[in-house]
Amino acid sequence: MADLRVGIAGLGTVGGGVLKLLDGNAELLGQRCGRKLVVSAVSARDHAKNRGVDLKSATWHANAATLAADPKVDVVVELIGGSDGAAKKLCEAAIAAGKHVVTANKALLAVHGAKLAAAAESKGVVLAFEAAVAGGIPIVKALREGLAANRVKRVYGILNGTCNYILTTMRESKREFADVLAEAQKLGYAELDPAMDVDGVDAAHKLALLAALAFGAEVDFKGVYVEGIRHVSAQDIDFAATLGYRIKLIGQARLTDNGLEQRVTPTMVPLDSPIAHTEGVFNAVVVEGDFVGTTLFQGRGAGAGPTASAVVADLIDIARGRSAAAFSVPAKDLKKYPAAPMSRHRGAYYIRLMVKDRPGVIADVTAALRDQRVSLESMLQRARSPEEAVPVVLVTHETEEAAMTRALATIAKLDTVTEPPRMIRIEQPEG
Amino acid sequence: MADLRVGIAGLGTVGGGVLKLLDGNAELLGQRCGRKLVVSAVSARDHAKNRGVDLKSATWHANAATLAADPKVDVVVELIGGSDGAAKKLCEAAIAAGKHVVTANKALLAVHGAKLAAAAESKGVVLAFEAAVAGGIPIVKALREGLAANRVKRVYGILNGTCNYILTTMRESKREFADVLAEAQKLGYAELDPAMDVDGVDAAHKLALLAALAFGAEVDFKGVYVEGIRHVSAQDIDFAATLGYRIKLIGQARLTDNGLEQRVTPTMVPLDSPIAHTEGVFNAVVVEGDFVGTTLFQGRGAGAGPTASAVVADLIDIARGRSAAAFSVPAKDLKKYPAAPMSRHRGAYYIRLMVKDRPGVIADVTAALRDQRVSLESMLQRARSPEEAVPVVLVTHETEEAAMTRALATIAKLDTVTEPPRMIRIEQPEG
Repeated sequence: MADLRVGIAGLGTVGGGVLKLLDGNAELLGQRCGRKLVVSAVSARDHAKNRGVDLKSATWHANAATLAADPKVDVVVELIGGSDGAAKKLCEAAIAAGKHVVTANKALLAVHGAKLAAAAESKGVVLAFEAAVAGGIPIVKALREGLAANRVKRVYGILNGTCNYILTTMRESKREFADVLAEAQKLGYAELDPAMDVDGVDAAHKLALLAALAFGAEVDFKGVYVEGIRHVSAQDIDFAATLGYRIKLIGQARLTDNGLEQRVTPTMVPLDSPIAHTEGVFNAVVVEGDFVGTTLFQGRGAGAGPTASAVVADLIDIARGRSAAAFSVPAKDLKKYPAAPMSRHRGAYYIRLMVKDRPGVIADVTAALRDQRVSLESMLQRARSPEEAVPVVLVTHETEEAAMTRALATIAKLDTVTEPPRMIRIEQPEG
Repeated sequence: MADLRVGIAGLGTVGGGVLKLLDGNAELLGQRCGRKLVVSAVSARDHAKNRGVDLKSATWHANAATLAADPKVDVVVELIGGSDGAAKKLCEAAIAAGKHVVTANKALLAVHGAKLAAAAESKGVVLAFEAAVAGGIPIVKALREGLAANRVKRVYGILNGTCNYILTTMRESKREFADVLAEAQKLGYAELDPAMDVDGVDAAHKLALLAALAFGAEVDFKGVYVEGIRHVSAQDIDFAATLGYRIKLIGQARLTDNGLEQRVTPTMVPLDSPIAHTEGVFNAVVVEGDFVGTTLFQGRGAGAGPTASAVVADLIDIARGRSAAAFSVPAKDLKKYPAAPMSRHRGAYYIRLMVKDRPGVIADVTAALRDQRVSLESMLQRARSPEEAVPVVLVTHETEEAAMTRALATIAKLDTVTEPPRMIRIEQPEG
């Protein structure tokens, strides 16, 4: 069978990993695909850089856009990044030229995924993006194929390794966010501009893709409610442990009566759930299906090797002639669900207040909760001090977020409450 | 597109689940496949039994074998079970008649997988068996496709839910094997004849399939070294916890210099590894690949719903026109590795001796180990008693099993050692 000719745009960390994999496992891949995967063209900023792999037989494109028109390219691998600009242009041009597209670009797909999928479909080419979500974990394939017999009830996971590393390190070393972030930046685990990671945007991109796959919906990144991890304190992590939880940045999507709820928030997950034990830079995704029950997929969510593994898995599918609709169902069948407002979210809540330790404080606080019909599961006040503010922790039963928000507004105004209340959502996995 | 017409042989628990899924999620499946999945024929022992699904439009076959010749069947789903007899005949006949085969039958594939795969290939039909390994976890697809870019270093997992339930319950309730097994039988978690499960045969069937997929090898069930869980005692489970481990029945395969090592054995896994937290009836599979690193897949390994989910995932692939070689590479390319003898296995070992508490005992034991160049990592003697035998636990550094076996033979003969030594292998996951 003829070689599958691959054009790669972007030869940074991931691109380098893809080159290394295609070179190092060439024989194995040839056997598994029944044909060779050949890098026939590349494009990158720096032509001269040594990438440890012989690229002499590949055509060099100074401009990534011209890759799309290269007659020696069957598949364009887009590793430029960014939701617009060169990456978007290249993918559009490649599809228009009848070439398959493999991309690791979650930002691009989160914003333009539905349009690109429709374009690929109308041209009869593959748009594949296993590497865009959870790195090396084959979760896109699992949702699109392996678990496709199920109506998905809920999909959630740890989708950002940087945040998980920071939260894990905060817990283990009992240090605060800013301190651990600075260290992670020094070690190269966090970007100098960490906003995309620690503010939850990267996780939200990935969640929007998972939700689209799981619920056969048009990608709706704007519909994702996002909170990052900057406000998580060492104190909250410590209280979580006392209460039997671990704090993770969780992206979660589920269909509710109010529409599609998509949220990325620091979340308390029970210590006895497997996802609580997904630590450091690892990612994990849990899928709850109506027949399969609860399944968990765990692995490295970033890095050259894992991402290359996912990119090349997509190339193998294409080489084998296997294709499926990008988001599991044909683009025209993708549903547009309204975004369920967070005010209608139902769940249990962890609340931490800093209060002056005076008689009547707890009575005032619990009255505010009662007035909103929020019922308490437990209350915890460990420290006592006549001078300083002390933490009081409350855990509620399931309630609606709007009620919780109103109660917290009242509580925040109490004279005895010295800081804005901290609120972290609690999530229970299914059995 | 024309309907995909499915003929199902065997309407027990799993068959009933498949019927229920195809009926309940029919609309969803039609959308995801672009065509309907229709049950056009069935065969089972009891025609009259009400299965909660309307089967009037399906042809009834009193003899499963005639399903293969039914012109209204595109795919035969074999859910009869057993490595030979009716199941084998049906699969062979269906392939010969040019029909795709989907089966949940691990015993059949473990013994006849290579031949059936070659036959399917020569007829250009699909032989799919996602449901044969780890129930609802899409691990066959992960190895054949999602992780196919990787050279697999090692694959291992908890492959039998009955054993995992028994070991979990023994640990939680501090009871012995026989007691917990009897309870599991009463609750329906274990068969009245539990041998296939507790002696590790079922796990060995599944491991042989995983190994074939991971290493592109002919299935070699006979090459699997098997130890069941009957000899695991509450005492060992307790010592494991003290040492930072949990005991699981682990099936593991890896390529070594001595050939393909496949083994199913009670194994100590570190408490901080995710697989240690796979409890009760859940299964988990870990794949270590050269690029992706360590990935873990967890879910329910048995039961009507999870197994149906896997069976129908295979049907969806067929309906979408997606096919791949049954064992990832063409049958003619499947390698025949020699079975690595367990005597050449290298690893750390847990040894528990029951000894008379006299001066010199430990010196005799450690001398026997030293004579075989087995070096000790730790030693533990908690109880002291002048009259009764007391347990002494030894943990070795990595050593060869042959040396360990020789040392244990010497130790067993010591006057002060009152029972045959117990040995459990220790396994460290990669980072």
